[in-house]
Amino acid sequence: MSADSSPDGNDADVIVVGAGLAGLVATRELEAKGISVIICEARERVGGRLLNEPLPIGDQVTEVGGEWVGPTQFKIKALADELGLRRHATYDEGDNLIDWKGKAVRYKGTIPRVNPAVLADIGQAQLRFERMARSVDPAAPWKAKSAERWDRQTLGAWFARNTATAGAPMMFEIAAEMIWGAEPADISLLHALAYTSAAGSFSALIDVKGGAQEERIVEGSQAVPLRLAEQLKSQLLLESPVSRIDHHGGGVCVHAGGRELKARAVIVTIPPPLTGQIDWHPLLPVNRDQLVQRMPHGAAIKCLAVYQRPFWRDDGLSGQAIDPAGPVRATYDNSPADGSCGVMLGFLVGTRARALGELEPQAREAEVLKGFVRMFGAQAAQPVAYIEQDWAKERWTRGCPVCYMPPGAMTAHGAALREPIGPIHWAGAETATRWTGYMDGAVSSGEDAANAVAAALARSAA
Amino acid sequence: MSADSSPDGNDADVIVVGAGLAGLVATRELEAKGISVIICEARERVGGRLLNEPLPIGDQVTEVGGEWVGPTQFKIKALADELGLRRHATYDEGDNLIDWKGKAVRYKGTIPRVNPAVLADIGQAQLRFERMARSVDPAAPWKAKSAERWDRQTLGAWFARNTATAGAPMMFEIAAEMIWGAEPADISLLHALAYTSAAGSFSALIDVKGGAQEERIVEGSQAVPLRLAEQLKSQLLLESPVSRIDHHGGGVCVHAGGRELKARAVIVTIPPPLTGQIDWHPLLPVNRDQLVQRMPHGAAIKCLAVYQRPFWRDDGLSGQAIDPAGPVRATYDNSPADGSCGVMLGFLVGTRARALGELEPQAREAEVLKGFVRMFGAQAAQPVAYIEQDWAKERWTRGCPVCYMPPGAMTAHGAALREPIGPIHWAGAETATRWTGYMDGAVSSGEDAANAVAAALARSAA
Repeated sequence: MSADSSPDGNDADVIVVGAGLAGLVATRELEAKGISVIICEARERVGGRLLNEPLPIGDQVTEVGGEWVGPTQFKIKALADELGLRRHATYDEGDNLIDWKGKAVRYKGTIPRVNPAVLADIGQAQLRFERMARSVDPAAPWKAKSAERWDRQTLGAWFARNTATAGAPMMFEIAAEMIWGAEPADISLLHALAYTSAAGSFSALIDVKGGAQEERIVEGSQAVPLRLAEQLKSQLLLESPVSRIDHHGGGVCVHAGGRELKARAVIVTIPPPLTGQIDWHPLLPVNRDQLVQRMPHGAAIKCLAVYQRPFWRDDGLSGQAIDPAGPVRATYDNSPADGSCGVMLGFLVGTRARALGELEPQAREAEVLKGFVRMFGAQAAQPVAYIEQDWAKERWTRGCPVCYMPPGAMTAHGAALREPIGPIHWAGAETATRWTGYMDGAVSSGEDAANAVAAALARSAA
Repeated sequence: MSADSSPDGNDADVIVVGAGLAGLVATRELEAKGISVIICEARERVGGRLLNEPLPIGDQVTEVGGEWVGPTQFKIKALADELGLRRHATYDEGDNLIDWKGKAVRYKGTIPRVNPAVLADIGQAQLRFERMARSVDPAAPWKAKSAERWDRQTLGAWFARNTATAGAPMMFEIAAEMIWGAEPADISLLHALAYTSAAGSFSALIDVKGGAQEERIVEGSQAVPLRLAEQLKSQLLLESPVSRIDHHGGGVCVHAGGRELKARAVIVTIPPPLTGQIDWHPLLPVNRDQLVQRMPHGAAIKCLAVYQRPFWRDDGLSGQAIDPAGPVRATYDNSPADGSCGVMLGFLVGTRARALGELEPQAREAEVLKGFVRMFGAQAAQPVAYIEQDWAKERWTRGCPVCYMPPGAMTAHGAALREPIGPIHWAGAETATRWTGYMDGAVSSGEDAANAVAAALARSAA
């Protein structure tokens, strides 16, 4: 923590709220333009929804937050490369598993081949969904020709009406839960289409090979914000939650951890629901305030069991499994690149995250391991260590992996997600128009906000 | 403002947050049981979403917040009677008007008789809606047999699929806007059904005669909280917003306007979105926190034009009009009981509230008066005074008339709306199971919370 208490230490050209990926990238971009920045972070660490956890075997880390990168995520890959970080393929060899009516069925690829009728049903619905998504501009989804009709229905209602089997909507439900940490019934169809369009396709969202789960960062995804923070010249105030922001034509006064920081502009990079907990003076415009009242965070608990070895690989299994009966409905092999131990990752999401989140830790661990045993056998019962992270219980996050929009919000308030309000600018993964909700989106949102602020400061100086 | 700075002045059995109707009723009930209370109010006044405004002609008031009472609203009527307040019928004589494709059409009753096909279509859809609503227990809507299916669709999607004309869904849209301050596309069908069930029927929600708009309080609806406050013996702290609540098994510490108040329990009566702006230590359970992230306030601006006389009555008009083209889509005669002047009330709600809320006051007034002129003629153009209230711009309300649930929220979190969390109890119109969202609901929610707290305190003393 850099603590500069000189009179000048409370002034900068720009204050950045939040030292996650978006905030750190924005700060770096502003520094490169010769603009002074103070960056405020509520936690005692940087990284936001990215968090490494050291493994008890070997000297590697695993991730309890966002971790994967994939094709077309050029921004995050270039940044990781530049910071000297290495990437490795997510383990994807051998067969995937699905518990289909009590029986473990092996398959290859993302969609389980349990039943030709279900497979055909998923295929036709996904084709239609992809086609609809391509007609939505992720920078202005409310302008799509069918925007109103799509924004008044949920993704769940659309799946129900556009599938003919029971298996297909169930598979889509699991996919949606992994993407948004929410149930399809919660999410606006238009929001889901815009999000899909921002990623390129629905396949890109759900696939490992060729999709958003394709690669990982050897040093752990949090290495990106950690190294960015090391390279910054700006004041980084840790343990400095922003409680209040006064704003006017000429600038802002940001109250952070007992200090009053003055600047000509502020970039707020924290998740939308948390922006509503800041005491704004004057209040933000109604359209922004009401957007924030209706853009909730999903819920996800990341559960990781550490074993001496990734034993499932011996059976020709990838570690990827789908268990519709849950509570863990999807798993991945999250072992470190050097294979120094085996890490099985299971997701509790949406309603299951909230329900199991209420259990005592040991009871929840038992439920999760029971799921791992059902898919991967008795060896899964005795991990060397069990690690979990419930993001909805984090004061400075309140959910995971991303904030979504329910019906009606996008057409009513979509523009308010990004539009600056006088000296107030917005960034963060939710505000991105490419790879919304992903690390790649966080990077581009930070760059975009920095460019917009720099342009605004140049205009006001001219 | 009662300011007691003695050591004991910061301690009570119970703290009540919010001096609206629910908070004042809860306080009164607790006092009657011999339980000591401190009540904290953020504003410099009591009444929350109830607010009288003196009229510039005569010595009467009009209301810029909630105002009407109707049949089966036994709680609020009994309370008003007990406080010595009088009621009068909402002016409902003569013809109602609708602007139907550019032509003013007169009709009687709630549903405009513009077209037999539309009328029949409204009738069949309303019948089905009423039947569905009767199957929903407003105390536990998530237990309805079709709860999941109804909670994954919006009211707007249901109207679209269950009507055959263009006129019927448009009429339902206007009705929904008046009830919730939101668009049908925003609202969960299940939430709408529960809300309807809590009121008895959809007719009860929308009707003047025989419905929720039937009567008014001569002294203005805010007279109820004002008189309640006068009669309280408890400390009432005005201008004391609650910023933080620490809670544990034994009680709470409530930080309000610079004071730290200690009590064995707290009743929080403010609208759900504002409960999320309190800094809770420890954080509230995830299920409650995520409910609050997704239970937004509607938007409504109440616009009142004051004339020397209610001149529309001379033309045999009730003052009730529907103007689908808007921006004012519904009007009412809001003149005082003594007829000392004429008051025309127009609502800007939902998207129209947000759009016109961004205009300068004079431009908005001009738009509203243009609407009044279209319905009631040139005399409407020159009011003696123009009064308006945009509740979404009120720091301590953030919308109007009520908070609603989007799809998915009721089945996931419905119970968290009312369930106490240790020493924390909830009240307010949104939490009521009879006349949810209305003054009557606010009263019963305050009574229920007071009874629950008293029982809990008695148990812990035993």
